[in-house]
Order: sequence, then structure tokens, then C-alpha cells
Amino acid sequence: MNDKIRIGIVGYGNVGKGVELSIAQNDDMQLVAVFTRRDPSGIHTQTPGVKVVKIEEAASMKDQIDVMILCGGSATDLPEMGPQFAKMFNTIDSFDTHAKIPEYFAHMDAAAKEGDNLSIISVGWDPGMFSLNRTYAEAILPQGSHYTFWGKGVSQGHSDAIRRIDGVQNAIQYTIPVPAAVEAARSGSEPVLTTRQKHTRECFVVLKPGADAEKVKEQIVTMPNYFDEYDTTVHFISEEEFKRDHTAMPHGGFVIRSGKTHNGEHTHVIEYSVKLDSNPEFTASILVCYARAAYRMRKAGQTGAKSVFDVAPGLISPKSAQELRATML
Amino acid sequence: MNDKIRIGIVGYGNVGKGVELSIAQNDDMQLVAVFTRRDPSGIHTQTPGVKVVKIEEAASMKDQIDVMILCGGSATDLPEMGPQFAKMFNTIDSFDTHAKIPEYFAHMDAAAKEGDNLSIISVGWDPGMFSLNRTYAEAILPQGSHYTFWGKGVSQGHSDAIRRIDGVQNAIQYTIPVPAAVEAARSGSEPVLTTRQKHTRECFVVLKPGADAEKVKEQIVTMPNYFDEYDTTVHFISEEEFKRDHTAMPHGGFVIRSGKTHNGEHTHVIEYSVKLDSNPEFTASILVCYARAAYRMRKAGQTGAKSVFDVAPGLISPKSAQELRATML
Repeated sequence: MNDKIRIGIVGYGNVGKGVELSIAQNDDMQLVAVFTRRDPSGIHTQTPGVKVVKIEEAASMKDQIDVMILCGGSATDLPEMGPQFAKMFNTIDSFDTHAKIPEYFAHMDAAAKEGDNLSIISVGWDPGMFSLNRTYAEAILPQGSHYTFWGKGVSQGHSDAIRRIDGVQNAIQYTIPVPAAVEAARSGSEPVLTTRQKHTRECFVVLKPGADAEKVKEQIVTMPNYFDEYDTTVHFISEEEFKRDHTAMPHGGFVIRSGKTHNGEHTHVIEYSVKLDSNPEFTASILVCYARAAYRMRKAGQTGAKSVFDVAPGLISPKSAQELRATML
Repeated sequence: MNDKIRIGIVGYGNVGKGVELSIAQNDDMQLVAVFTRRDPSGIHTQTPGVKVVKIEEAASMKDQIDVMILCGGSATDLPEMGPQFAKMFNTIDSFDTHAKIPEYFAHMDAAAKEGDNLSIISVGWDPGMFSLNRTYAEAILPQGSHYTFWGKGVSQGHSDAIRRIDGVQNAIQYTIPVPAAVEAARSGSEPVLTTRQKHTRECFVVLKPGADAEKVKEQIVTMPNYFDEYDTTVHFISEEEFKRDHTAMPHGGFVIRSGKTHNGEHTHVIEYSVKLDSNPEFTASILVCYARAAYRMRKAGQTGAKSVFDVAPGLISPKSAQELRATML
């Protein structure tokens, strides 16, 4: 057991639980402890022998964990927790507030360097694998256009926004790519697509007793930034229907780039897509293989903050460079 | 001009010409010279100011070229030319004889180290981008199956094999993925697909005067390794039809991985695909952006042979790490 990469999980929500499941699929890794803000006695992990520890006690386990996977949210958890942990551990996180990535990177870089650790930020599928695919495709086809479509899947941000409306008891919002727009992007004709043309939004809402459905619907479809630029449909359902039909967490998406060579005569289309039964488990699986890379990069002497752009692909694979060349190239 | 990456092209066939076109799309690069085994006076490049030089004189230009892109074939050119050039220059090549990659890597590694250079081997789309996508997807979903489909596109190896048959004047072979097999791979059900189920082969053959069509057809469809395991159709056409309809070089393909999480309960499908008007120009575009990576890696002090698995994605992009984080993550 001692030569396995020793992993800690911070936060035991959907992603944290997915990380635990993914570690069990990787023979070179071992889950050592789960760290929580809750009462540890209330948390029961799946893996035998795993400690559940108060988050405040993490510092005492510095010598027992090689990489800490931070499964907190980007809004409030990671901006605070990220740099704290980066001072003590190598870390992986899925920070996804796109506009604040440069600022977060700077904080993580300073903290990781202070602690002589390595932190890979914004790991997941978007940001993450989608970012990589945009970058590979743009480097290959510098003259071209790229398109990202998300869905069909749940947007937590949009679901939360609906839940904040007066009279709403529960709500979920699905982002749906418009098939005609996906086809147009794939065609290589490099169409200009508006926000409205690319995605539709579908909402399932449980009302509080006595709430005015028409008023709620109006507030949703006109909500600035969230819904006003989209064609949105709103369905009112019962709490029972909600629980029966809307608790799974599927998602998916497409990154398409089309570009030209030979003075515009030849068209090439590169597409990357994912279709996921469980968004948090897929994200968790990506976090786990990047934990392997963080461990190896730190062992090779690197420190500070990194992004997926800095990680050579071979480092995330359990296979050696020699094995990869012989079997995967 | 002086801070541009100075590129040399060895071999001015379809890929070499594609490299020239791609360099023109990348502002940070400059084509310095084309090296050829032919008479240089017979070669006219598109780019003003580019020298055309006999291959034997390459050594005299060591100080004028940062990265040499080797556009020779894998069967006879690269095994000899690769190590020779790796002693003198940083190199990029598209060596694609899968079974011989470990041996070629070893030779290139020794030669590049001897010359204090860096060589990235087997760059292209397969091997290359497809290899990367198989590796990323397998690391993310270790429990699963992967599928590679090629086409519709020309297989040079199969076309050559037909041309060697007695009575054949000209021939081209298209590899075609079977739509039902692609759909089955995409479904996430992890089907076991035989060679015959995955691809069909379609041949267009021009016969020599007096050749026996039935005999030629029989020799094609029963040819061991090349055709015997496939459903093959053979069309006989005239040389005029051949020239009119079969000189373009489209290609494409799909890498699909489906895997499970949550003890097999959840299925995820990752797909990468390309659809290309010109196979050699697309390959060339990949070679060119990896030349950027070779230049940067050598500048950072690395030497020896590398594969795409060793190259951090950010290194192939003209954007800085900071720009990538701000705009692509």
C-alpha cells in the first residue's frame, strides 16, 4: 500500500463522493481521509479504513497525504479554502468562475510556492477538457471558428436563480443545445450564431401554495443575463414529480472547431463531445487523474499553480511513457 | 523577423507543401528553406525568399533553422533520415509505423541527445491527436472500452497494395466506417466489434489493357491482412474517371471511449472526431504547431526524443500561459 498515491478529499458532496468512487478504479491511488466542515460522525464513507476528519485538523495530516482534492464550490469555498490548503498540500480543484481565474491562479500560485507545493486549478470538463480541446484545435487550425455547446444538462446557477424567485419552492433548469445550431457548426460553414440560436432553456418549477404561476413564469423568462437572451420554456410540476424525474445529474456538451487550409479552399472540422450520466462523477474522475499528474510534477521538482495547459498528457495516465508509446501512440 | 521560429521542411510532397501553407497561418513562424533529394531548380515554393536546398547541404544551415519538419515516409525515409537530422536539428516527424515506434523512439532519442537537440516523433492525427484522445479518455474512465474508426478516407497502404497486383494500372482504396458500428460504440453499451463490423473497404481500380477484371477483383478481396477480414467492394473505372473523381485527399475518423462510474451504474461517452478535406494539410498543420512546442521545450533545456504525450498542451499554442488561462480556460 505504501507506494500508492495518498489522496485526501475536502468536502463530501456529490463531487467528493465521485472522487471516492474514482479512486477505487485506480490501483495506484489510495484514499486516506475525507475532510469536512460537518460533524465527522455523521459521514460514512464507502471505502474501508478511511478517516473522516474535521477540516480544521487537516494541518496535522500533512505527512500522510500526497494530494488533496478540493471539492468545494467556486463562489465562496475555493477562493478561501484553496490558498489555505495550497500552503499545506499539493492540491487539485475545479474552480470554474471563468472571469476570476487569473486572480484565483495568482493567489494559488503564491500560496503553493510558499508551501513548496503544486496546485492544479480549474480541472474538470469545462473548464478542463473543453478548454484543452479548444486550445489544441485552435493551435492546429488558427484560421477558423469555434463553438461550445452545453447540454442537455442541469445548470446549477440557473436552477438557483429560479429558486430565489418569490413563490418558488423548488426548481431545476436544463440547458439544451439547439440541434440545427450544432449541425451548422459541424458543417464547416463557420456560421455566426447568436446566444438565442445556440441553446434553449427548459425549467421545471414547483410552486409554493398560493403562488401565481403566470407571475413566476414572467419573472423567469425575463430575468436579465440568465434567461432574457434565450427561448425559455417553463413547466410547473408537483414536488413528487420533481423528486421522481429530476434528481439525476446527466450532462454533456460539444466543442467544435472548423477551420480552413490552402488559402481557404479546404475545410476541416474537429469535434470533441461528452455525454454523461453523472456530471459530478465525471468531473471527479478528471480530478483524480490530474491528482496523479500533480504528484508526479511535484516529485519532478515543480511547484506553484498550474492549469491543465501545463500538464503533459502522459502525466495523467497510470501507464509509463514507454507503455504509452508502445500501446497508445 | 528575427524573433520568429525559423522552420525548415525536409521533403516537398503533399505534407511538405501543407507545412508551408500552415506556416503562413502562424505569425510567430518563418519558413527558411525546403530541403529536397530532387534537383532544387525544379522546385518552386509559394513563399517568397525561401531557399530550396539539396538535402546533403542541410548540415551547413544548422545555425539558420530552429526546427526541421521531416515530411518523409515512415517505411524507408524516416528510419534513416530521422536520426541523421536529429543529430543536427530539433525535429518533428509523423512516423506512423505503430509496431516500430519504440525502436524508432530509441534511435531518435540517442541521436537527439548526441546532437543536444529535441525531437518530437509520431506527430499527426493518428498517431498524434487520436493517441492523445485515447490516453486522456482512458485516464478519465479507466473502466471502459475504446473504439477508433477511420474514414471515409484514402488508405495509401491499401491503395499501394492494389497497385502491386498484376494487371492494375491505377487504384485507390477508401476505408469507410460502418455507421451502425459507430452508433453502437457511441451508445455506451460497450459492444465487442469485429474488424469486419467496424469498417468496409471500397476500391476504385483502373485496369491495364487486356487485364482480367474478375481475377483482379478476386486477388483484392482475398488479400491477407489487407482485405480478407473486410467486406470489400471493387469498382473498375477508366483513367479519366480516376483523375476526375479520385485525386482529392479527404479523410476523417472517430475516437470513442465509453466507461462506467458508480459501480457500473453510470455510463459516460467521450468522443473525438475529425472530418478533413485534406489529410496531408491537416497533418501538416499539426506538425507545425508541435514545431512551436519543440522550440520552446529545447529553449527550456530539454533534449532527446519526445512524443505528444510529453508535450504540455499550452506549448503548442501561440498564446502565452497567462493568455490561455484568461481566454481559453
